[in-house]
This record gives sequence, structure tokens and C-alpha cells, in this order.
Amino acid sequence: MQHIRGTIVFIVMLAGLQAAAGEGGSAVKTGIAETDPHLLGWMQGFPPPDEKVIRFHDGSYFRFPQLRWTVSHMRQLMPTVNVARGLGQPAPLEKKLDGDIDQLRFRPIGIDASISWEESLSRNYTDAIIVLHEGVVVYERYFGVMTELRPHAAMSMTKSFVGTLAAMLVAGGELDERQLVKEYVPELASSAFGNATVRQLMDMTTGIRFSENYADPEAEVWAHARAGNPLPKPEGYQGPRSYYEFLQTIIPEGKHGEGFHYKTANTDALGWVISRVTGKSVADLLSERIWQKLGADLDAYMSVDSVGTPFSGGGLNLGLRDLAKFGEMMRSGGYYNNQQIVPESVVQEIRKGGSKKDFEKAGYALLGGWSYRNMWWVTNNEHGAFMARGVHGQSLYIDPKARMVIARFASHPKAANAENDPATLPAYHALASYLLGLQQ
Amino acid sequence: MQHIRGTIVFIVMLAGLQAAAGEGGSAVKTGIAETDPHLLGWMQGFPPPDEKVIRFHDGSYFRFPQLRWTVSHMRQLMPTVNVARGLGQPAPLEKKLDGDIDQLRFRPIGIDASISWEESLSRNYTDAIIVLHEGVVVYERYFGVMTELRPHAAMSMTKSFVGTLAAMLVAGGELDERQLVKEYVPELASSAFGNATVRQLMDMTTGIRFSENYADPEAEVWAHARAGNPLPKPEGYQGPRSYYEFLQTIIPEGKHGEGFHYKTANTDALGWVISRVTGKSVADLLSERIWQKLGADLDAYMSVDSVGTPFSGGGLNLGLRDLAKFGEMMRSGGYYNNQQIVPESVVQEIRKGGSKKDFEKAGYALLGGWSYRNMWWVTNNEHGAFMARGVHGQSLYIDPKARMVIARFASHPKAANAENDPATLPAYHALASYLLGLQQ
Repeated sequence: MQHIRGTIVFIVMLAGLQAAAGEGGSAVKTGIAETDPHLLGWMQGFPPPDEKVIRFHDGSYFRFPQLRWTVSHMRQLMPTVNVARGLGQPAPLEKKLDGDIDQLRFRPIGIDASISWEESLSRNYTDAIIVLHEGVVVYERYFGVMTELRPHAAMSMTKSFVGTLAAMLVAGGELDERQLVKEYVPELASSAFGNATVRQLMDMTTGIRFSENYADPEAEVWAHARAGNPLPKPEGYQGPRSYYEFLQTIIPEGKHGEGFHYKTANTDALGWVISRVTGKSVADLLSERIWQKLGADLDAYMSVDSVGTPFSGGGLNLGLRDLAKFGEMMRSGGYYNNQQIVPESVVQEIRKGGSKKDFEKAGYALLGGWSYRNMWWVTNNEHGAFMARGVHGQSLYIDPKARMVIARFASHPKAANAENDPATLPAYHALASYLLGLQQ
Repeated sequence: MQHIRGTIVFIVMLAGLQAAAGEGGSAVKTGIAETDPHLLGWMQGFPPPDEKVIRFHDGSYFRFPQLRWTVSHMRQLMPTVNVARGLGQPAPLEKKLDGDIDQLRFRPIGIDASISWEESLSRNYTDAIIVLHEGVVVYERYFGVMTELRPHAAMSMTKSFVGTLAAMLVAGGELDERQLVKEYVPELASSAFGNATVRQLMDMTTGIRFSENYADPEAEVWAHARAGNPLPKPEGYQGPRSYYEFLQTIIPEGKHGEGFHYKTANTDALGWVISRVTGKSVADLLSERIWQKLGADLDAYMSVDSVGTPFSGGGLNLGLRDLAKFGEMMRSGGYYNNQQIVPESVVQEIRKGGSKKDFEKAGYALLGGWSYRNMWWVTNNEHGAFMARGVHGQSLYIDPKARMVIARFASHPKAANAENDPATLPAYHALASYLLGLQQ
């Protein structure tokens, strides 16, 4: 078991895993400053000292504080596929920094005292953050080993890119959201996905058995991890050997269309559908339909399994400014860099959100009134804000009313966003209100 | 043995291996058209059929014809480190195609009849080729799965980049070429490298035992491959676990400074020296000193070992136009994209070449009168042409007199350039003479 477990940690990036930080006793360093990879010497030197080497196969890459280096160096640990920005000029980003933002104060959820915006950055283990107001950069910071030239793991924000691609295909008539999954991918016919509709995949309202309970060694998320791990399979391994093979093993749990259930496997299945429909990998499609039009500063990239399948559920890595450009494009009705990149109807559909009743059943204590549509998280707040979210604090927050976009990469020791939301969501809303004040 | 061999094929990219193509009987397809990866279906489809999957760990990625896909998809098979182009605009490349070039005729070495330039492309399994004349693109072609957006393996052309970086450091006073290697890297003191000078490394005139005879399972190249392989080491493996560990095991053979011996380990040792001197990895140094100044179209990247060391001897992958830009910079005395990137003295030193007598001892039948300097191949012909060269037909050919630069990527079934030189070198020289005629 230890051997198998050692080879499957790949997928802890998926969602939800409680990282080990801070649970092993008082000697473990956990603060943002004291876990700076430069300071701790992770992967520094030629060669780095043995005890400072971060590896993929032994799982050390996803432990805390090693994670703080890993999230901006994924490609140095595993095979990846490029998401090309093309040969065009980067879209310019005007910069007018607002020095008052750091002092902005807000009250985190569940806490009686207020903290400053700047304090929230370290509290959330921020690796990099940028704020656009009306398309202009008003705030931009990089920490630790993160720089503007370094793509960072998007984790489950990947899903919002894949969901947007799927919605674009639907809007363009290339994909029928009412069609059953098995009509596009016959290999999934006898799995739980087979008789779900494409729309149900896109909104994660399928009824599938896919436990992301990492404490349970029988949880499907481990089988998913073993299948998608690009390393050679351990001797005697009998399970599925790729994401696609894994998806075929998924069995039903409950009925399709009866509630929102956040399960990563849906996005991988959606990735398969859109590759079948277009004849292109998700990475190539993302490059052609979005990245090459966005005027991205950097190529993005995706991790791949052993047969070259990009990990649709969480494998994207991208630059901070490009995440912001993508957000600004979505804020601007899909129009950016002098062209309509995503149909306006797709953006409107996402902003409108999904069924609140469906969402409520999932029981997110901190996300009351939210909904989920096309793999985006919709706050349904008075500003109409919507988000892409990934474990360990990855977030793209788009506030249409405040004409604000916040892109943040983080390496919080705890995977679940419930850990950082208390100091994230009020901070974002406070900044939106501040900027809204300026524009009025 | 089979198991170990299965995990070490990584390094056949190093140099010299005779690929298996055409040796297994008449059923093996070998022509350029019939081995097009699209046509053969390698890694095509979602998923690709089992028998069309290309993998790293089983060595299939470096067999022919799979190699024809692999050379432009290395990062999808192994961990890599980025060589960032930065955030600047790509340097523009003016294009004035010359339709007569395809019909240009020349006589390959050892053949009585002439062939056309266009015929030479398929004969050499060209993946992509571009020709600059006076800095203007006069010819540009892509074949198979290669595109202008796809970095291609440079193989041993990597060495010329590393040698240029080292020469830049020497010219700038950051590195003393007369100093012994052990003064910079004490870990190499008891290896054969220890008492070689940096200059001897740069010109490969060290006396070290490093056989690149792939037919011999005891050859050092296999130990180098096992050490550098980024996959987990096989059970029971006792050897060096990284490039740096491997270099420490190299023993003397002959004396330093008594002839040119083309041995890849020299470049890896040089990479170690320049990382120690600068505190930067070869990938970061290449980015900062060259790539970010060149106005490169694409990021480049390098393969890495299990502790993150870029493979200086052969791990670079880059875009065709960027290879041409690098060549044009070298043709222009180190000046390109409105700045002096490489000191003019460094370019002059390379063009002047090394010792012909030292080179002659290496016995290259097709390269009479050539020499080797700073990890560049210098023809010493009447045009003063010099080259970067890598197995399977990678070449950058700079002809100062004809003001011509040819950058070519290829996937020839045979690794040794002696296989393609007969239809390469005369073609390049014929094109140079043709362009020289135009400019006079």
C-alpha cells in the first residue's frame, strides 16, 4: 500500500486534501514568511542538498511547505503539454497602482476584529495577486519564488476554463448540451456518465460515485490519481491506466439532475467530450480558442497522463497576468484584445448562474446563496460577482458592478478553500466596494 | 538488465546512437512521407490506440519512426524547465521568400548525380527549416507534426548555447578559463575533470573516460543516462542519481589538452561550473543572458534530472525561428534586436575556431579541416562558416560571407550526422554560393 500510495500523490492537487502542515507538532514552520522556499532553501543550489530536493514520485512535492515551491514549478516535476500563446504581441496592461489598497480594512468571517488587505495576503499564503479596475492594474504583488514570468498551478480553476470552452462549443452549435454523453463518447456508455446529458456534466449535476475523501483509501479519487499518474504503473497494478480508462469505471450514485455535486471526474469527462467533438486536445483547444486571442503574456501548460491526456479537472498552469486578462475578458462580455473571444451569451449565462436550490444541497457553509454554472462559481451577490476557484487558495474573482477583477495564486497549507475563504471573500468584497466608491 | 535498460533510454538523445530504423527488415517504413506521425497515427485520437501511444519509460519514444513525433513533443514525456523569453515583443523577422531555392541543385558527397534542394529536405528527414539571407527570411518550411509554435529538440546543439554562455562569462571576467575545474566545483576534485582547465572543458580537449559506444553496456554513456533519468531509480540501483553525481565518477583517459574528444560529459561539467559561478541554473542563465534579449518568439525549455539539473549536454528544445534568430545574432557579431547580446570578441573567437590539429585527431572523415571552439563546430571553409550540430540532423549553419543563416530540425532515423552530412553540407554551401551570387 505504501508503494502504491507513494506513486499516486499526483492527484492531491485535485481537491480537498488536508495538507499535513501544522499537524505534526509545534516544530513545523507554517507562517508565510518562514515557509518562503528561498529562505528554507528548497531546490536551491547546484545541486540542492539532499534534504532540500523536492520530488514527484515520493509525494514530497505536495507536502507543506514544499508545496510553496511546487505550485510554480509543476513542469519541473512531471510531463506537461503547452498551451501556446501564439506569435502575436501581448495585450498591454496599463498600470496605475493604488497605494491605499494595502491599508484597506475588513472583517474576516467569524472574527470580531478587522485586518488590513495587506495582512490578508500573508494570512492566505498568497504567492501572487493582481487587481484590475476598469481594466487597469491597480495592485500587483509577487511573493516567495513566484514571478511574473512563472506559470502557477491553477488547480481546479482549470475547470472554469474547460467549462467555458464547452459553453463556447454549445453556443457555436458544435456541441449539443441536451445530448447524452454516450452519444459523443461511446466508451462511456456503460459508465454512470453514459446517460447523463452534456449540460449535467457542465453543471456537475450528475449522479456519480466519486468520493474525494482522501482519508478513505477506497475513495475513487485515489483510483483517479493512480490512473492519471504519468509514471510507470507499479508492478502488479491492475487498475485503469489513464484518465479515460478511469472514467469508464465510474458507477452511478443517485440520479442525474438532482443537485450539484462537486466531483472532479465530471470535468475530465467533459474534456473527453469536447476533444471528441473538436478533434483537438483540451490544451490545443484552449490555445486556439482563447490563449492565442487573449494576447497572453506567457504560454500556459497542462499536466498530462501517460497517454498524453491533459488533466481537465485541475492540470492547468498559467501566469498571473494572463489569469487576470482572462478575467477581464469575462468581465467585458467576452470581448478583449480587440476581439470577441467568448460569445457574450456564454458570459451572460455564467453570470446568471445555475440553480441555487441545486447548489444548496451541497452544503457549503460559507457559500450561502451561491450557484454553479459552466464550471464557474457564482456568488449571486449584489455585485453579481463570479469566481473560478482551486484548492490551496487559487481564485479568480470577477465583480461586474465594481468593474474589478482579482486574480490570486496561493499555497495555503490547507487545501480546502473553506480555510481561506473567511479572509478572502470579505477582502474581495471590501476592495470592490472601495473601488466602486472611486468610480462613482 | 532489461529492466534497467528500459529505464535509461532517456539519454539516447545524447549522441551517436544508431536508431533501429530500417534494420529490422523490409517491412519497416523509413521514408519521410510514410513515417509522417499524422499519417501513422502516433499519439493521434482521444485516446490514441494502445499501439500508437509513445512512452518515455519503455524507450518507445526514441525508436524510429516514433522519434519523428517525439522530437517536437519532449515535454509531454518528461519533466522540463522553462527558458523564458520574457515579456518583450518578439523581434520581427522580415519575410521575402525566394521560390527558386527549391530547384537549386547540388551534388551530395559520395554520389555522382545531383539532387535538388527540395529533394534534400526529405532525404534528411527535415522537420522544419528556415533560411535567413541578410536577416530576411528567404525560405521556411514545416513538415509532419512540426509547426512554428512547437519547440523541437536541439539535441547536441544545446552544447553551443552552453559554450556561448561560458565564453560570455569569460569575456565578462566572471569566469577564468585558465582556472582548474576543481577551483569552481570542489566536488569534481577527485574526478578526471578536477585538474582540467575550464578552457579544456569548453573546447573538449580533456582526457576523460567517457565512451559513447551504445553497443557496449559498460559504456559510460549508459551510466550517464541512468544517472540523469528523471524517473524513480529501479529497485537495487546503486549508481549515481543525478548528472552531478555521475560527473564525479568520471576517471581519466589520456591527458588533458592533447586533442579534441567529443564527449558530452564535458558540457555537463561546464554547466555545473557556470551555475556555481553565477548562482543560476543553465536554463535561467540562458533566459537572462540570451533568450530575453533575443526577442524570441517562443519560450525554450530544457529537460531536467531528478534533482532539477538541466541537461546541458543535449536537453534544450526551442522554436525554429528562435534558432534562426540566435544564428543571426551570431552572424551579426553578437548584435541583434537592437542590442549587443554576446560580446563581439566571443563571436570572433568562435569564428576563428580551435586547433585544427587537435580536431584532426578525432578522425571525422567528412569534416576535414574543421575545428571546435567554445562548443561550436567551425568549418574553416572559404566562407568562414560555423555550426551548432545535434544528432538526427539538428543544425544551425552560419555563413558570414554569404550573410546566410540556416536553422534546421530533423528526425533522421540514424543518429550520427555522418548519415545526413553528405546531403546537408553541400546543400548548405550551394545555397550560400547562390545567395552570394545574388548579393554581388
